[in-house]
Amino acid sequence: MKFNDSLKEIKIYEAGKPIELVVREFGIEPKDVVKLASNENPNGCSPKVAKAIATNAHKASLYPDDSFYELKEGLSKRFNIQSENIIIGAGSDQVLEFISRALLSSKDSVLMSKVTFAMYEIYAKQMGAKIIRTDSYEHKVDEFIKAYQKHKPKIVYLCTPNNPTGDGITKENAFEIINAIDKETLIVVDGAYMEYAVAKDKAYEIKPTDILNLENVIYLGTFSKAYGLGGMRVGYGIANSSLIKELYKMRPPFNITTLSLIGAIEALKDEEFVQNSISLHQQELKRYEEFAKEMGFEYIDSYTNFITYLFPDNINSTKVFDELFKRGVIIRDLASYGMNAVRITVGTKEQNNKFFETFKKVVG
Amino acid sequence: MKFNDSLKEIKIYEAGKPIELVVREFGIEPKDVVKLASNENPNGCSPKVAKAIATNAHKASLYPDDSFYELKEGLSKRFNIQSENIIIGAGSDQVLEFISRALLSSKDSVLMSKVTFAMYEIYAKQMGAKIIRTDSYEHKVDEFIKAYQKHKPKIVYLCTPNNPTGDGITKENAFEIINAIDKETLIVVDGAYMEYAVAKDKAYEIKPTDILNLENVIYLGTFSKAYGLGGMRVGYGIANSSLIKELYKMRPPFNITTLSLIGAIEALKDEEFVQNSISLHQQELKRYEEFAKEMGFEYIDSYTNFITYLFPDNINSTKVFDELFKRGVIIRDLASYGMNAVRITVGTKEQNNKFFETFKKVVG
Repeated sequence: MKFNDSLKEIKIYEAGKPIELVVREFGIEPKDVVKLASNENPNGCSPKVAKAIATNAHKASLYPDDSFYELKEGLSKRFNIQSENIIIGAGSDQVLEFISRALLSSKDSVLMSKVTFAMYEIYAKQMGAKIIRTDSYEHKVDEFIKAYQKHKPKIVYLCTPNNPTGDGITKENAFEIINAIDKETLIVVDGAYMEYAVAKDKAYEIKPTDILNLENVIYLGTFSKAYGLGGMRVGYGIANSSLIKELYKMRPPFNITTLSLIGAIEALKDEEFVQNSISLHQQELKRYEEFAKEMGFEYIDSYTNFITYLFPDNINSTKVFDELFKRGVIIRDLASYGMNAVRITVGTKEQNNKFFETFKKVVG
Repeated sequence: MKFNDSLKEIKIYEAGKPIELVVREFGIEPKDVVKLASNENPNGCSPKVAKAIATNAHKASLYPDDSFYELKEGLSKRFNIQSENIIIGAGSDQVLEFISRALLSSKDSVLMSKVTFAMYEIYAKQMGAKIIRTDSYEHKVDEFIKAYQKHKPKIVYLCTPNNPTGDGITKENAFEIINAIDKETLIVVDGAYMEYAVAKDKAYEIKPTDILNLENVIYLGTFSKAYGLGGMRVGYGIANSSLIKELYKMRPPFNITTLSLIGAIEALKDEEFVQNSISLHQQELKRYEEFAKEMGFEYIDSYTNFITYLFPDNINSTKVFDELFKRGVIIRDLASYGMNAVRITVGTKEQNNKFFETFKKVVG
C-alpha cells in the first residue's frame, strides 16, 4: 500500500509530557508532580464553567448543536462581529489544519518565524508544502517582508505573542507586514495568547475587527489559555465571511464535544475569572524574571503565560529538563527548536516555589 | 487567494437537526422535543461515566495524556490486541479523515456502497479522489468485487452494519470481499454499530483480531453508539502496527478532550450498561417493525440502533420529515441519498410512543 509522499517528511509532534507519565516512570505521587509544560491555566477554569460541565455530564451521549449557534452568538458579542465571520475548531490548532488543507499543495511554501508554534510546520508538511523561516526567533518586520518578497509563500504565520518564545509584535509592526503582502497570500494572526499581551501592553493588541475588512487575513483565538479550557479543545478563527465559508468545507461535523461547547459558552460569561487569573499570572511572572536575574541568565520578555529562559553555555537545557523531570517538575526543553533554552509555564505561587527550589538543587 | 481545486466539489455534511433548532424555530419546549435523528443512545451513557465526568469537571483546564495510555490499555484488554495496534480519533470519523489524508490524491478512487456513511465521500473528495459506488444500497459481494476489479480503488469501505440503511454483511461475506482485494488497496471495516449486530446475530460479528494479521485492513469502532458517548467524540482504528504508525502522522496532538478520555476509560469498565441498553433497544426495535407492518410499508431489517422505513410512492419522505419536525419529532430524511425513506433512531419507550402517535397524525 502506497502512502502519500508527504508522509515521509512528517515528524510527529511531541506534546508536553503528561503528569501520568512521571507517575508511571518514576513512581512519584500525582499530587507531588508540578506540570509547567503545556501553558495550561494554573488557576484551572472558572468554577462556573466546571459547575456547568458537571451539571451537564449526563449529556455526554448527545451530539452538540453542530451550528454552534450559542457559542458564535457569545463570540460575536464579545468581538463585535457576526456569526458568519466565525469558524469553531477543536482548539485553534484545528483551524490551522483547515487553513493548511484548504490552501496548500506541494507546489506551495509557507513563511514563519525561525522559532514558532510547531503545528504550522506539521500541517504544512502534511500537504507537502515547503517551510520558509526568518533568521530571528523574534518576528522582525524587515525579515518577514524580505522573505515574503523572495519566496511568495501561500501562507504567512504571525504568532503574536509567539509560542514558545513569549515575545510579540506590536499591532503597528504586524500591520507593516500585513500591508506589504498581496491578496494571493493568506496571513494568519495567531492570537492564542493575546489576552496576556493586551493586559501587559495595549500596543500589542490586535482585535478581530482590525482584520475583518481584509480578504486575506484570519485571526485565531482559543479557550485553551486565558479561559482555562485547554483540555476541552475549543478555538476559533475569525475572518471575512467568504474566507470562513471556504474553510467550513474542511470542518468535520461535531468537531467539538457537547461538554466543550457548554464549557466555552459559560466561559465567555465569566470575564472576571479571566482577568483575575491574568492578574495573578502577572505577579508570578515577575518572580520568574527576578529568579533569572538572581541566577544570572537571560530570559525573553514575556507577553504570554509562560517564560523562556536562555541559558549560557555552561548550562544544558536538556540536562536541566531531565533532572527536573525526575524530580516531578515538568517544563519544556527547547533544544528541538535549536535553542539552549527552556519554556516554563507560569504556575500558581506554590507550583512556582517548587520550580525555584528544584531548579536551584539541579543547577545551583 | 486561490483555494485548492478539490474544494469546488465539496458539499458540507448536513448533521441531524439539533433539539436547539426546533426550540428556536418553532418555540417548542426542549422537554417536548424528541430527537431520533443522530443514532445517539437513548439510554444516555453509563451513570458511572457521567459521575466520572462530573467529578473531574475541574480538569477541563488540563490537556489529556496525549499517549492515551490508559484508554489503549482498556481497548487492548477488551479486544485482545496491543496498544501499538490502536489509533484514537475524535470519533471514528477522525480516523476516516486520517486514512483519507494519508492515502488519497486526485489520481485515486474509492469504492463504497450506493448508500452509506456520508463522511467517506466527503473526506475522499477533500483529497480530490473519485467516488465509485456499487449499484445496491446493500453490500453485495459480487458488486464490490466487480467494481474493485474494474476501478482498482485505493480504498474500499465496508460499513457493517451499514449507516444509514441498517443492514449488514456477515463475516463470511465480508471476507469474500477482503480476500478478493490485493494489498495495494486499503479495506476499511467500519464497525461503528457492530455491538448491535453481534447481539442480533453472531454471524455478523467481525472482530479486530480477525483482521489484525492482514496488512491492508483496518477496523473502526466508536464510543458514540452502544457506549452512549456520542457527544464526547471518541473512536478508534485497529490494525497492524505499521499501518497505525503511518496514520499517526496525520493525528493532531490532544485530539480528544480530557473529559472524553476519562469518559471512555470509564465506559469500558461498565459493559453491563452496554448490554442492558442493547437489550432495551432490541425490545423497542420490534415495535418499529410491527408499526411498519401495521402502517403497510417496508423497512430494512436492522442490525443497528436505528431503522429505515421505505415508503411507497404515495408517501413522501421529505414531507413526513417536515411535518414531524414541526411537531418536535426529529428524524432523518434520506431523500438526499436518493431514497424515499426515513431513518429513525430507536429511542426510549416514551420517545418511540411519541413518534408512533405523531407519525399517525401526519401520515395516517
